[in-house]
Amino acid sequence: MAQAARLSGFPEWLPADRIVEERVIDLLKHTFELNGFAALHTRAVEPISALAKDGEIDKEVFAVSRLHAEPGDAKNPLGLHFDLTVPFARYVVENAGRLPFPFKRYQIQPVWRGERPQDGRYREFIQADIDIVAEDTLAEHFEVEVPLVMAQAFGELAELGVPGVRILANNRKLIEGFTRGIGLTDITAVLRCIDKLDKIGPAKVGELLAAQAGADESQQRRLLEFARIESTTGAFAEEVRALGVSDPLLDEGLESLSRLLDAANRQQPGVVVAQLKIARGLDYYTGSVYETQLIGHEALGSVASGGRYDSLASTGKRTFPGVGMSLGVSRLMSRLVGRDRMVEASRGVPTAVLVAVTDDAARDEAVDVAARLRARGIPVDVAPAASRFGKQIKFAERRGIPFVWFLDGETGHEVKDIRSGEQVSADPQLWTPPAEDLWPTVRSVSRD
Amino acid sequence: MAQAARLSGFPEWLPADRIVEERVIDLLKHTFELNGFAALHTRAVEPISALAKDGEIDKEVFAVSRLHAEPGDAKNPLGLHFDLTVPFARYVVENAGRLPFPFKRYQIQPVWRGERPQDGRYREFIQADIDIVAEDTLAEHFEVEVPLVMAQAFGELAELGVPGVRILANNRKLIEGFTRGIGLTDITAVLRCIDKLDKIGPAKVGELLAAQAGADESQQRRLLEFARIESTTGAFAEEVRALGVSDPLLDEGLESLSRLLDAANRQQPGVVVAQLKIARGLDYYTGSVYETQLIGHEALGSVASGGRYDSLASTGKRTFPGVGMSLGVSRLMSRLVGRDRMVEASRGVPTAVLVAVTDDAARDEAVDVAARLRARGIPVDVAPAASRFGKQIKFAERRGIPFVWFLDGETGHEVKDIRSGEQVSADPQLWTPPAEDLWPTVRSVSRD
Repeated sequence: MAQAARLSGFPEWLPADRIVEERVIDLLKHTFELNGFAALHTRAVEPISALAKDGEIDKEVFAVSRLHAEPGDAKNPLGLHFDLTVPFARYVVENAGRLPFPFKRYQIQPVWRGERPQDGRYREFIQADIDIVAEDTLAEHFEVEVPLVMAQAFGELAELGVPGVRILANNRKLIEGFTRGIGLTDITAVLRCIDKLDKIGPAKVGELLAAQAGADESQQRRLLEFARIESTTGAFAEEVRALGVSDPLLDEGLESLSRLLDAANRQQPGVVVAQLKIARGLDYYTGSVYETQLIGHEALGSVASGGRYDSLASTGKRTFPGVGMSLGVSRLMSRLVGRDRMVEASRGVPTAVLVAVTDDAARDEAVDVAARLRARGIPVDVAPAASRFGKQIKFAERRGIPFVWFLDGETGHEVKDIRSGEQVSADPQLWTPPAEDLWPTVRSVSRD
Repeated sequence: MAQAARLSGFPEWLPADRIVEERVIDLLKHTFELNGFAALHTRAVEPISALAKDGEIDKEVFAVSRLHAEPGDAKNPLGLHFDLTVPFARYVVENAGRLPFPFKRYQIQPVWRGERPQDGRYREFIQADIDIVAEDTLAEHFEVEVPLVMAQAFGELAELGVPGVRILANNRKLIEGFTRGIGLTDITAVLRCIDKLDKIGPAKVGELLAAQAGADESQQRRLLEFARIESTTGAFAEEVRALGVSDPLLDEGLESLSRLLDAANRQQPGVVVAQLKIARGLDYYTGSVYETQLIGHEALGSVASGGRYDSLASTGKRTFPGVGMSLGVSRLMSRLVGRDRMVEASRGVPTAVLVAVTDDAARDEAVDVAARLRARGIPVDVAPAASRFGKQIKFAERRGIPFVWFLDGETGHEVKDIRSGEQVSADPQLWTPPAEDLWPTVRSVSRD
């Protein structure tokens, strides 16, 4: 009936790796909920018109249409969402009267982009977004909260063996004000040039700045010095001021980013770094912007990005400013269980105990024992076929099930830890596996 | 930026209702895992050729194509999966060498069908599937296990206020053998007629049986008597035998369904009912078939269906028989929070405690208190703006947050239960809300 057909860019994991992914998702959910974010789930499709920005579609959108289309269908062509921000913005507008603002939500779902698949970049991938959206005005402290909730989430993930992160922060006002302060007007051009720093280096960026933004040597030098600034404390502000540029928007940006760094350092010292070359998606961000490096895996690109947008959504009368970040679960997975195999699940099945069946007549009793153990919250499976001792152990071993239960041991019911070989009498109403064996655990792959 | 655009057939819930859906999903996951089913997640798209059966597409498939398509794309047109069985079968074939058989998996994901939206029927909806797939042969006891795991899942859901269920079971062999035993040969035609019983009644089905399957009056009568049989015990077998029809396949079916009923009654008395008119999708089922009625909501249609298929997947050399059921999460939600509003969440945010900020200078301290409470697993939010007492209470009230924390009560830190008005001294390192207030709870809507 079914034929195998792998599709490039559509990752699927084996059961043990899906356990890792589910654990990642559970920890994210838990962290987001501890911080008051409500879970949302939106449909996978949006009108193509909503996925286009100013009529232009700059993301590679997958269009969706009924095979047995009817004439009316063409009026409202649909596409798969390429992020979770567009559907969230639409949801906010649609339900504005029924949501309490400021509204904090998280959303963990697949998104689709028809881009060329590459290392850590897929065509279908799971994102975990948090956003805070307000009505009319959004207090600055939310720009502190969002990256720190993400930092807290990565702190939780570290317990699974996920490497640490560095959250890089910048502020659009700062770079915009600086550009203006040195006498340049084409801010978009400057941003586009600075964005290439990591790829082509400062010398070529200087040339580009001259060619595309009309920057003279002094302006080039100051922009490059500006873009080199990086600090885990408010010290970056002094470095910027030392460049001798003055502009009201620059001051606003410096103060805002300083407050972000101060608050971050008070709450989670060192995790947020001001990096003034961060230019990301500056066409719709209007305040803080964030990127996140997985330490030791910088080449992977940002694993959590976002920023503040003063107009996430609007209804004509009302405007909804927001701030949010999007964590790339699948991108993270490309390292955790993909190429680098950093973490693994202790087993590929939930099962902690296999109840052996040595004789088909004993299946009913085995099923009863399993039910009694499950009633006490223990994940149990019953051997699929009656067979001799060795085959039952092998069955458990192949799946990583740590315990095998025998109905007919020397002392009656007995349970065997197949790793140590220890076998003890056990009562199905009383026996419990050690806590660390109850459910699969996720841990660092040791590199000894 | 975003405009509201509701799409018929693509349900989205408000935050409090999403809490209900998440709780439903969590309980399903937990039940499936207790029973040894491993979590899987497959991609949303399949080649259209895999969604077609024998070249024919009988489901309303949504085709997917890149807006910026390249010439090569057309070779392998894609569609959104319309169920979770097709992707699972493909996954089994693709990963056969790396999966331990018998392999038990569950999968909870959206599926898409371009059908006309109706009560309880959507174009995008979440299904929760369990399947057990074996290599070459699948033991009959798995046909008992699957409906009983579903029954157990509904048992858990009952604690949220979900009505009880009746799992209707039949066996394809039984109806096929009976048809043959009374001397008819066009089994598909008979099945098609019997399937219409509930819609058009026995008299018209009799006429149809004559016209389409060539049944004489005695054959019609016996088929209608057969189809009327229903029993919660193995007693149905006697009723069938009393019709005086004999056929080896009929005997096999009777014995198999009797064993299912016996085992079900031993484990969960009364939940499984033999109902011999159940004919569902008999083109690929080969043994047990199941449907599930939500008691008191029979008109909704089956909320969990499935059966045994002897050839879920095959690689040419190897065959993978399976048995599974699919629970309609969204269809269930259409009653739980939709039309009938049977259950509700105690609040629409995860937050148990709001830390009040009466003065902006105190925000840092409020943030610290929130962090200390969260470190002990309590979901907390900090008031978004400094304001007077009454406004903070109102903010919590609007969201259903039960507790408000004050930094500057008469005795220092104090926490107020805004429902009772009781306000007590509290230490952020020690105070814990009552267990029932810690996270949102989901409960029956009382109809007083």
